[in-house]
Amino acid sequence: MSQFSPPACPVPHEGADRILLAHGEGGRLMRRLIRDVFLPALDHPQLRARADGACLPPVEGTPVVSTDSFVVSPLFFPGGSIGSLAVYGTVNDLAVCGAEPLYISVAWIVEEGLPVAVLSRIVEDLARAARTCAVSVVTADTKVVPNGAADQVFLTTTGIGRLRPGIQWDVQRVCVGDRIVVSGPIGDHGIAVLAARGTLGLELDLASDSAPLHELIGATLAHSPGVHFVRDPTRGGVAAVLHEVTEAAQVTLEIEEAAVPVRDPVRSACEILGLDPLYVACEGRLVAFVSPESASSIVRLLQSHPLGLRAASIGQVTGRGLAEVHVRSPLGALRVLDEPAGAPLPRIC
Amino acid sequence: MSQFSPPACPVPHEGADRILLAHGEGGRLMRRLIRDVFLPALDHPQLRARADGACLPPVEGTPVVSTDSFVVSPLFFPGGSIGSLAVYGTVNDLAVCGAEPLYISVAWIVEEGLPVAVLSRIVEDLARAARTCAVSVVTADTKVVPNGAADQVFLTTTGIGRLRPGIQWDVQRVCVGDRIVVSGPIGDHGIAVLAARGTLGLELDLASDSAPLHELIGATLAHSPGVHFVRDPTRGGVAAVLHEVTEAAQVTLEIEEAAVPVRDPVRSACEILGLDPLYVACEGRLVAFVSPESASSIVRLLQSHPLGLRAASIGQVTGRGLAEVHVRSPLGALRVLDEPAGAPLPRIC
Repeated sequence: MSQFSPPACPVPHEGADRILLAHGEGGRLMRRLIRDVFLPALDHPQLRARADGACLPPVEGTPVVSTDSFVVSPLFFPGGSIGSLAVYGTVNDLAVCGAEPLYISVAWIVEEGLPVAVLSRIVEDLARAARTCAVSVVTADTKVVPNGAADQVFLTTTGIGRLRPGIQWDVQRVCVGDRIVVSGPIGDHGIAVLAARGTLGLELDLASDSAPLHELIGATLAHSPGVHFVRDPTRGGVAAVLHEVTEAAQVTLEIEEAAVPVRDPVRSACEILGLDPLYVACEGRLVAFVSPESASSIVRLLQSHPLGLRAASIGQVTGRGLAEVHVRSPLGALRVLDEPAGAPLPRIC
Repeated sequence: MSQFSPPACPVPHEGADRILLAHGEGGRLMRRLIRDVFLPALDHPQLRARADGACLPPVEGTPVVSTDSFVVSPLFFPGGSIGSLAVYGTVNDLAVCGAEPLYISVAWIVEEGLPVAVLSRIVEDLARAARTCAVSVVTADTKVVPNGAADQVFLTTTGIGRLRPGIQWDVQRVCVGDRIVVSGPIGDHGIAVLAARGTLGLELDLASDSAPLHELIGATLAHSPGVHFVRDPTRGGVAAVLHEVTEAAQVTLEIEEAAVPVRDPVRSACEILGLDPLYVACEGRLVAFVSPESASSIVRLLQSHPLGLRAASIGQVTGRGLAEVHVRSPLGALRVLDEPAGAPLPRIC
């Protein structure tokens, strides 16, 4: 895991190689931190103006806004870091609403004593992820709390996007007969982060699936008739999305366990840990409820995109009224999939 | 201080009177927390839809966005709480940009073990503050971190507003001769929060000035010619704003110490603590740089509003090139006001 440890060489910062309380106090050290660490990575005219807020160009059509905090531990893991996750996570929340992401704000809560080099690396990851998504970081805030009052770094990103014309995805449009499609293998993120903690004694050949979904959606679902509802299965995994739909639309769902794509390392780790992959978080997958007529063409479309190579139809909406999720085992037995209630995987995102 | 302690009676929440890790895991307990604690206080069609993001009505003109985290300790203090502060703080960042606030998002990072009653009280304060400002809480997120990984609650709010037509406030418009106006006594918030910690042995008759500034600004500065730049003096106090202006506009400022409004309890506390009130945070005051011709009418206008009763002109821009802040004492001596560098008041907001 050594390639995922923070860099050893401290970046000097006015004599301080660790974040001090004074870096959060609105004075000289904060201005220098912004100038030396944040602005070089995140250069944008709005940020450079350093006003209390950013004036944006007019947003045509329907603006969409989403916010998420990120408290993942460890900060760096195979396939990403809290920096990239904080961008992709919020971009994905906009994307599954049918929006194109445009702007992002970033609020940092930093624990006193964090090495400046670690902060710099997170800023760079965040900046790279924002460039990948073509979203501008337009405004930011940094607070420093005393040692022990937070664990290293927490990030909160808020994204602003524009609803793609013609999109009307809504959980209330889910109806009996709809097919349930996932865009790829599930649970990679959750298991990769767990393994990166090093406390499980697991050495896995596995990276998080953390990735932005707006291009995949723009190239596929955004132009497909028959899409009723889209969601990214993060905390609580696919099971949480399924239960959200059963409750909101009052429908019963049936999942074919054998059809659910799961990578071997995830399956093995879940067996060892006593977890069901359906409960494990993804950070670069989507679940779509689509009409039966459109399902196979949508799966093929998804499979034609690099982020959807292993897309699959995994089940369907079987009835109305009884809000339950059933899973059919490879041998044909039907069991009820409980809603996630406990906390098997805290601080996964 | 007993009236500012959390309520003693726990609000039952499915058997749990404290926040569990499971409340942050995307499953049943999280849905019930949203249903039982957040939605009753913050009811809004967008929130009720519980999508990953909120679709907003089109924003006419120039959208303005601002984000801030709030880590204040203690959570409750005379004159406010982290809940009201998180709304007013972000509303004020929009207001001093010249924007009318419209929408707000709220991200909660909650420490495992927080009494649900404390969370509920913060939610209610936040909801009341949002109603006061006529801003809608349109989307939210909640993460729970294990006991010890955060200190009780951190909030991050992001505000979206609309720039008032005709406003062009910019630090680059500050010029020699400009008068520096404050809207009221400074330092109330910082000293009230310090006193509420109970560790200073100070018993003061003082409440935070925490308040929203958009109505004051809408009724006064927004319609006044000669306003060049407006800022709210939070972390680092008025001194931080002055230094921000000197650096950005490359001007020298001179403050008349005797003209700066300071309440007696703030002055006494500052003397005991060895603090200069110019460095102490406000949360409901503004500093404006205005043309000399307009200064006295602007001060009178501010004084005609309940939030500006003790507005005063406290100094002026005296020269260009040498970026320094000078303070003239009541006896006429001139001293240099250093930029805040240390951290006299951590977790003040």
